Amino acid sequence: MTTQTCPDTPQEVRSAIRSGRWKEVTAKAAQGYTQANLVIVPRALAFDFLLFCQRNPKSCPLLEVIEDGKSEPVYTAPGADLRTDLPLYRVFNNGDLVAEVDNVTEWWRGDLVSFLLGCSFTFESALVNAGIPLRHWVENKNVSMFVTNVNAETAGIFSGPMVVSMRPIPRNKVVRAVQVTSRYPLMHGAPVHIGDPSLIGIEDLNQPDYGDKIDVKDDEVPVFWACGVTPQAVALTSKPPFMITHSPGHMFVSDLRDEQLATF
Amino acid sequence: MTTQTCPDTPQEVRSAIRSGRWKEVTAKAAQGYTQANLVIVPRALAFDFLLFCQRNPKSCPLLEVIEDGKSEPVYTAPGADLRTDLPLYRVFNNGDLVAEVDNVTEWWRGDLVSFLLGCSFTFESALVNAGIPLRHWVENKNVSMFVTNVNAETAGIFSGPMVVSMRPIPRNKVVRAVQVTSRYPLMHGAPVHIGDPSLIGIEDLNQPDYGDKIDVKDDEVPVFWACGVTPQAVALTSKPPFMITHSPGHMFVSDLRDEQLATF
Repeated sequence: MTTQTCPDTPQEVRSAIRSGRWKEVTAKAAQGYTQANLVIVPRALAFDFLLFCQRNPKSCPLLEVIEDGKSEPVYTAPGADLRTDLPLYRVFNNGDLVAEVDNVTEWWRGDLVSFLLGCSFTFESALVNAGIPLRHWVENKNVSMFVTNVNAETAGIFSGPMVVSMRPIPRNKVVRAVQVTSRYPLMHGAPVHIGDPSLIGIEDLNQPDYGDKIDVKDDEVPVFWACGVTPQAVALTSKPPFMITHSPGHMFVSDLRDEQLATF
Repeated sequence: MTTQTCPDTPQEVRSAIRSGRWKEVTAKAAQGYTQANLVIVPRALAFDFLLFCQRNPKSCPLLEVIEDGKSEPVYTAPGADLRTDLPLYRVFNNGDLVAEVDNVTEWWRGDLVSFLLGCSFTFESALVNAGIPLRHWVENKNVSMFVTNVNAETAGIFSGPMVVSMRPIPRNKVVRAVQVTSRYPLMHGAPVHIGDPSLIGIEDLNQPDYGDKIDVKDDEVPVFWACGVTPQAVALTSKPPFMITHSPGHMFVSDLRDEQLATF
């Protein structure tokens, strides 16, 4: 196996990452298996962050919480190690990025609690499978993401705006897009807004806050989903003394199949 | 208003309870509005209990968590007070019932965190509305509840068996019963088991661990749902130093309509 070969199973992906053979983004890895955002905070902040997730389930859908003293996600990927099995991590002190590293063994502490949060990769595949084209896939770009004027619900030190991703959807496919993504509440679920961006505080669709500019054509409607960047953005705004996250696009690949997590 | 008159709105119900005019079970109060189980633990145990709920979403579906220092559920019933607005409470020390009281003002402490959990009253109404008869309604009994041999997922000090409720469903309505209750994941959702009770460790359907004996007729199948008694049973087994719950049947009546919480 080389870094050019995309592994097929979650176990192969994690093994390749752990041994340094895979350092890329995970977008095309182990298709059909659920990928996850990672947020790690000290136990002293864990109740606040867990409560933040409970109050903001569309932005922060919880797949698993790994208690302090442990780094194995026994529910979503038994045998995996969250310290080594993601391709790239970010380490923050007081909201400042202090390191971007391919494992966090050196940074690990006994009081760290890890949170795995659902990721939009799942519902994007489902949209494409349902015959709804995604322009950023076709153009090989990153999705457009925007900071809104909608506040996330506050919990303890964690507060800040909801971040959304935008996908242009053909007018005659908007209802289907709502139906398809509603099946995956643990991966952000149904959209949070359809249409006029100004109603959620977005001034210019051509100037995303994260990701790439994606054109919206005349026969399309901009549709907005709660975005997994929210917890990172909020957490950084809140400046926790110590935090580790995945690096964007470099997700944790779990053993769960997307369809196991569909609600109906 | 007398204690014989069943109030129609959640605000009326809570006001009648708070003033002592209503002391009954809440089963028939404010039809169509979501009722909730209440569990209150000290902040020192709040992360563990919140994690227990995250890991056992069918038994412990979280409607709202009210942080220490507060007793107003601002999301589900702004203006309400959890110390006074339920008809009957239970107070436990180290797993022992030490008081059953109509308000907990005397027992309140600044470090208490409150959890409101969804309740089966919601999906029972939905079943009846869908043309599926409920024998315990017809016979004016309590539903049968059983301790299973299925362990709830452990979190911190909280561990123990899952408790289920059983409803006999006509064979030709079982699929519909799954569909109807699947719409309410925040009120225990779809069944956890259909058919042979012995497969989940229930020896005799005629000897429920809680509630009343309910007959299962020849053309019916016993269907089992995760039960809101689970957190109380588990919490008691785990013997937390201090805990407050509602008294069975004496629920918190929220301002949310059941249909607001349906997923589709």
